[in-house]
Amino acid sequence: MIDDLLSQPEALDAARGVRGADEVTEALARVAWSVIADPGDAVAATLVREFGPVDGLRFALEAPGRSWPVIRAVGARRALDEARARWRQRADPAAVIGALRGAQKAGAQLLLPGEPGWPIAVDDLDAEAPMVLWVRGRAEFLTSSARVAIVGARAATAYGERVAADVAGDLAAGGTAVVSGGAYGIDGAAHRAALTVGGGTVAVLAGGVDRPYPAGHRNLLARIADDGVVVSEVPCGTAPTRWRFLARNRLIAALGQATVVVEAGWRSGSLNTAGHAATLGRPLGAVPGPVTSASSAGCHRLLREYNAVCVTSAAEVAEMLPVDARTSGSQEATDRGRVQLLRALSTRTARTEAELAQRANLTVERARALLGLLDLDGLVRRDGHGWRGVGAAPTS
Amino acid sequence: MIDDLLSQPEALDAARGVRGADEVTEALARVAWSVIADPGDAVAATLVREFGPVDGLRFALEAPGRSWPVIRAVGARRALDEARARWRQRADPAAVIGALRGAQKAGAQLLLPGEPGWPIAVDDLDAEAPMVLWVRGRAEFLTSSARVAIVGARAATAYGERVAADVAGDLAAGGTAVVSGGAYGIDGAAHRAALTVGGGTVAVLAGGVDRPYPAGHRNLLARIADDGVVVSEVPCGTAPTRWRFLARNRLIAALGQATVVVEAGWRSGSLNTAGHAATLGRPLGAVPGPVTSASSAGCHRLLREYNAVCVTSAAEVAEMLPVDARTSGSQEATDRGRVQLLRALSTRTARTEAELAQRANLTVERARALLGLLDLDGLVRRDGHGWRGVGAAPTS
Repeated sequence: MIDDLLSQPEALDAARGVRGADEVTEALARVAWSVIADPGDAVAATLVREFGPVDGLRFALEAPGRSWPVIRAVGARRALDEARARWRQRADPAAVIGALRGAQKAGAQLLLPGEPGWPIAVDDLDAEAPMVLWVRGRAEFLTSSARVAIVGARAATAYGERVAADVAGDLAAGGTAVVSGGAYGIDGAAHRAALTVGGGTVAVLAGGVDRPYPAGHRNLLARIADDGVVVSEVPCGTAPTRWRFLARNRLIAALGQATVVVEAGWRSGSLNTAGHAATLGRPLGAVPGPVTSASSAGCHRLLREYNAVCVTSAAEVAEMLPVDARTSGSQEATDRGRVQLLRALSTRTARTEAELAQRANLTVERARALLGLLDLDGLVRRDGHGWRGVGAAPTS
Repeated sequence: MIDDLLSQPEALDAARGVRGADEVTEALARVAWSVIADPGDAVAATLVREFGPVDGLRFALEAPGRSWPVIRAVGARRALDEARARWRQRADPAAVIGALRGAQKAGAQLLLPGEPGWPIAVDDLDAEAPMVLWVRGRAEFLTSSARVAIVGARAATAYGERVAADVAGDLAAGGTAVVSGGAYGIDGAAHRAALTVGGGTVAVLAGGVDRPYPAGHRNLLARIADDGVVVSEVPCGTAPTRWRFLARNRLIAALGQATVVVEAGWRSGSLNTAGHAATLGRPLGAVPGPVTSASSAGCHRLLREYNAVCVTSAAEVAEMLPVDARTSGSQEATDRGRVQLLRALSTRTARTEAELAQRANLTVERARALLGLLDLDGLVRRDGHGWRGVGAAPTS
């Protein structure tokens, strides 16, 4: 299909409409991928990683007889055959051209992995990272130095919406971008509060960025597209489906440096977002509520079963962010990181860098660097099991 | 003083009034200790441990010139001198006789450490264990096989009192004794609910068991003395003071196998009880509430800062109890203990027996015994750092 597309002036023209003149080939291939593969398709991701988007696409849509020496890299032959069958059904150059034209019409920008403006936070999703992102509005909020996902029940109570607004407003006023899903209830309260204080907010949609959903949030999403940013991995024109909502949740979790669930029923979809955050190693917070309220049962479940942090204010949410996201002075950040790391160390039990980073609310890279400094100061020691504090350091 | 007392027929008679004929000497000495020493007096506890209550009392009230070879055992000479000065001011045989007569009049029973009926749970307080306990009512609830301390703010909200009553009622109906402090608010709601369902409840007072406090709970405490038990470590006639309330809290925490705080302000006295529970290694639970309610701020603080377990129902509180307190069948208890222990083990990080016991909600003794069984089955291994799971065991 990619060669079909490259031979069509209309396709090249459509691609140039959203991309400028350069890198049209890779852009066309990645858009084609986002048309033929579902969000989070790990087989597609493997082909792209092994061969690049262009050759990967060629392989994906090849006649099955032709032999490529890649089966091993791609994994099970059967999974590949099944994926190819799925992809071929959707491999229509007109659909790719339609996606590009739709984006142009909606004023949507196309972001590709590795390019400037691409939010590298989503690369933490590895094989489930998006192929492309379609963006309407101020894309810079996707890479804000501080970003918190605030999610919760659509059927929120007045209490939940009030707390969501208080927390989101305070965070946004302090320069933290508020990431959510644009839904009724908690999501909407969080977006609105961020807009109200003139802060940044990111709405991650399950359908195309030209398909405001829910319909009742048409105006809100238009405001977000003006003063914040609306983003999706699926092409313009795509309707949201149950599967796409679930897949979308992983993007919300990945874009936030921490995820906070404000209100959620026992089986709320927000728990799915929380699960993604936990899988990604992102700090997870839950706002408690009355135990007599079914709308808080999911939050209490997160506190009990997922070891979520109990958060009651924006200040407590900010404590969940990596130290470097919370403060601008680098010496101050280093000092705070040292203190948190010393608190996270035990003199008795060796802890891995990943564990210490999580306990100290630091990125693993930062924790590693700081451990090196502490090692030079003789405050920590390392053995086969990990790091321990030495003597006078606070223990836990 | 003890020799004075033993030479007074009135003292012996008074002691026999609450004790029966035997062990009058030790009883008199311990009651004298409870008259002259404040609750939790560690210097007094050290003397009693080193010399027994009778000789310890002789030493405590000796003329300072006489030399005993015990200074080392007791610790700093100065602390001992100061303690002696305090004790001597109160060393009045008439006060001891008065305490015994008061108990007899109030129908209070005297419990001594090591005797049948003594709640060995309070011995976990070590040097802060009580010298004696005065008991009105059904002393057997002090040694119920399942006991939960439910405490909280005096200035409780309707929400807090409702949750306290629901949780305490359900626990008491299931055979768990509800331990609390007899105060207004959460304490009262918990006691009342336990009485209402015909269950066991323990009110631990800061003053004498003949001094109902607060006055507005005179009837409630009388009901508890009939159908539950009222207990105190201070002699009859003693008024509650701020210090005695704080000292009393450690007894509540020690008598409960777990402590649950239902509602508490940011600086509530219940947090003091929670701190004692944590120090004793007892599981600590907190009931969440609206973040907009100042009466729940202390509970949220426990969840954030003390790693308390979020509990929303009696069933969740019951999960905090040692497995042996939750089930009667010993094979079932063993099976459940194994499963919890396997869940608590990590294949990567070695954990100590104490840590595993806490994670698995088992006593350390039980955890140790079960680890031995698992070791025989090849499911765990031990190294210098503690225990790890092996291969197929669930990891965390």
